[in-house]
Amino acid sequence: MTNPLPSWRDTPTRQAILDFIAAVTDENSPKYVPPAARIAAIDNDGTLWCEKPMYIQLDYLLRKLAVQAQEDPSLRTKQPWRAVWEKDYAWLGGAMTKHYQGDDSDLNVLLGGILSLSAGKRAEAIEAEAQAFIESEHHPSLGRIYRDCIYQPMWELLRYLEANGFTNYVVSGAGRDFIRGFAHDLYGVPRERVIGSTVAYRYVEDEGTSDIVQRAELSVIDDGPGKPIQIWNVIGRRPILTAGNSNGDLPMMNFTGGPSLPALRLLILHDDAEREFDYVAGAEQVLEKAKTNGWTIISMKNDFEVIFPVP
Amino acid sequence: MTNPLPSWRDTPTRQAILDFIAAVTDENSPKYVPPAARIAAIDNDGTLWCEKPMYIQLDYLLRKLAVQAQEDPSLRTKQPWRAVWEKDYAWLGGAMTKHYQGDDSDLNVLLGGILSLSAGKRAEAIEAEAQAFIESEHHPSLGRIYRDCIYQPMWELLRYLEANGFTNYVVSGAGRDFIRGFAHDLYGVPRERVIGSTVAYRYVEDEGTSDIVQRAELSVIDDGPGKPIQIWNVIGRRPILTAGNSNGDLPMMNFTGGPSLPALRLLILHDDAEREFDYVAGAEQVLEKAKTNGWTIISMKNDFEVIFPVP
Repeated sequence: MTNPLPSWRDTPTRQAILDFIAAVTDENSPKYVPPAARIAAIDNDGTLWCEKPMYIQLDYLLRKLAVQAQEDPSLRTKQPWRAVWEKDYAWLGGAMTKHYQGDDSDLNVLLGGILSLSAGKRAEAIEAEAQAFIESEHHPSLGRIYRDCIYQPMWELLRYLEANGFTNYVVSGAGRDFIRGFAHDLYGVPRERVIGSTVAYRYVEDEGTSDIVQRAELSVIDDGPGKPIQIWNVIGRRPILTAGNSNGDLPMMNFTGGPSLPALRLLILHDDAEREFDYVAGAEQVLEKAKTNGWTIISMKNDFEVIFPVP
Repeated sequence: MTNPLPSWRDTPTRQAILDFIAAVTDENSPKYVPPAARIAAIDNDGTLWCEKPMYIQLDYLLRKLAVQAQEDPSLRTKQPWRAVWEKDYAWLGGAMTKHYQGDDSDLNVLLGGILSLSAGKRAEAIEAEAQAFIESEHHPSLGRIYRDCIYQPMWELLRYLEANGFTNYVVSGAGRDFIRGFAHDLYGVPRERVIGSTVAYRYVEDEGTSDIVQRAELSVIDDGPGKPIQIWNVIGRRPILTAGNSNGDLPMMNFTGGPSLPALRLLILHDDAEREFDYVAGAEQVLEKAKTNGWTIISMKNDFEVIFPVP
């Protein structure tokens, strides 16, 4: 038999994954799950691809704010355009730090600027921009274009799940319309299986054409408890396998399996400063829960033989 | 070859459906559509099953209000419980009539009562109730249980679409959680392909269990322009085939096909007083648009050889 997960080292982590998949697909196993219920829900940033030094979508959004400031000098004195224009990473990073300390004032200013980018944009246009962005722009330190910042072992896991009758969903706190632009190409996940945060839409008809247009208003925040809620809205089933890497994935991971369904929860631990990044900030709670409950922790340093695809 | 639509009469309507399906599945046709993009979006009430004398879900909801009034006499003096308790169909019907005349005051009172039924209900519990309801309760005049009020020709159309690589979605103005209770059993449409109106959810964890619980608050109204918006939220693709029967389906029908996709729009005309019901109220605009644009109008009287399944 060919090795289904060639970029994984032969560790107990890999074995736990293989054992779970073998059990749920074995009709004689007490853990057997029929194909329709083999739902995998996988986080994106930090789970399927790199999220440091900043979310890839945030890089895309900040560059768009920079273009606005380029075109309209009056914006350069207003936040968040001012911080973007002046490359004031202290302000930009501080907005997130303050958020985690319970102060959303700067984050809301940043979000206001970001949401203004959506006003009147056709949903389909966002996707084309997203795809072009990840195919042309480079990660600031890894020396590779963004599309090559996916984790090769996780890509292999998606393929192996698929081959075993699983239906894979990407469940991200980031923007769904952005991820739809490349999910099929990058992850083999079709557009209808991308779950994420979204702005509100307006339906517009004009002389025989009809379009879905974004509004400058948040509609769904697919993070924390929003993840199981959106999973229920879109799928209406509990996943039996989830993978995540941050506290925002904890409710989704708790929601895995159920009274009559087995569960495998995979937590990516970013512990490889040499090949990727080494951090636990934002993952403290989920890490503690994983340790307490014996969830499967994937050490990028020890469990991944290869991290990124070889271009 | 066996007849794929045996309950349809051999009319130009049936031929138009067969021709469209033949064209989009023929790789040599200019109308060819690859399987992933063969999306059918089908309304439920009045399109897949009977909606008169009242929506089947409304019957379910009013009976639940009646149970509340039974258990709590103090409710019997308050609307909408009073109208339900006194079987005041003038008030109940009047709420809808006033709505169509631009006055939502009574409708909001009715909706307030209905939404109170959702507070704290597990989404999965609603589904079980819905299924039990349609399998045990009878239509008030057709002399059949609700589950047998589906239109046999439309059920055959769903199967024929499926056999031709289409992915069928139910897109209803009624409650999604209600329809999820029986969509697979009744229509062969799995739960993740039911799009409908929804209340907001709360995610609840309690001593190792986790649940999705309804709140007494509307989240999505999947009617009118809400239909293309929800289609984009859930599927992210334009349907190439839509079927509907009321003005609430008009935007979804306009949204069918697109610059590079062919379209078939099917409008069910309720013109069979003898076997079902004869009405155009609530369908005036969509009927005019269908006539002007040459959409395919299905006459229940002339195009359907059989309307309901033979039990």
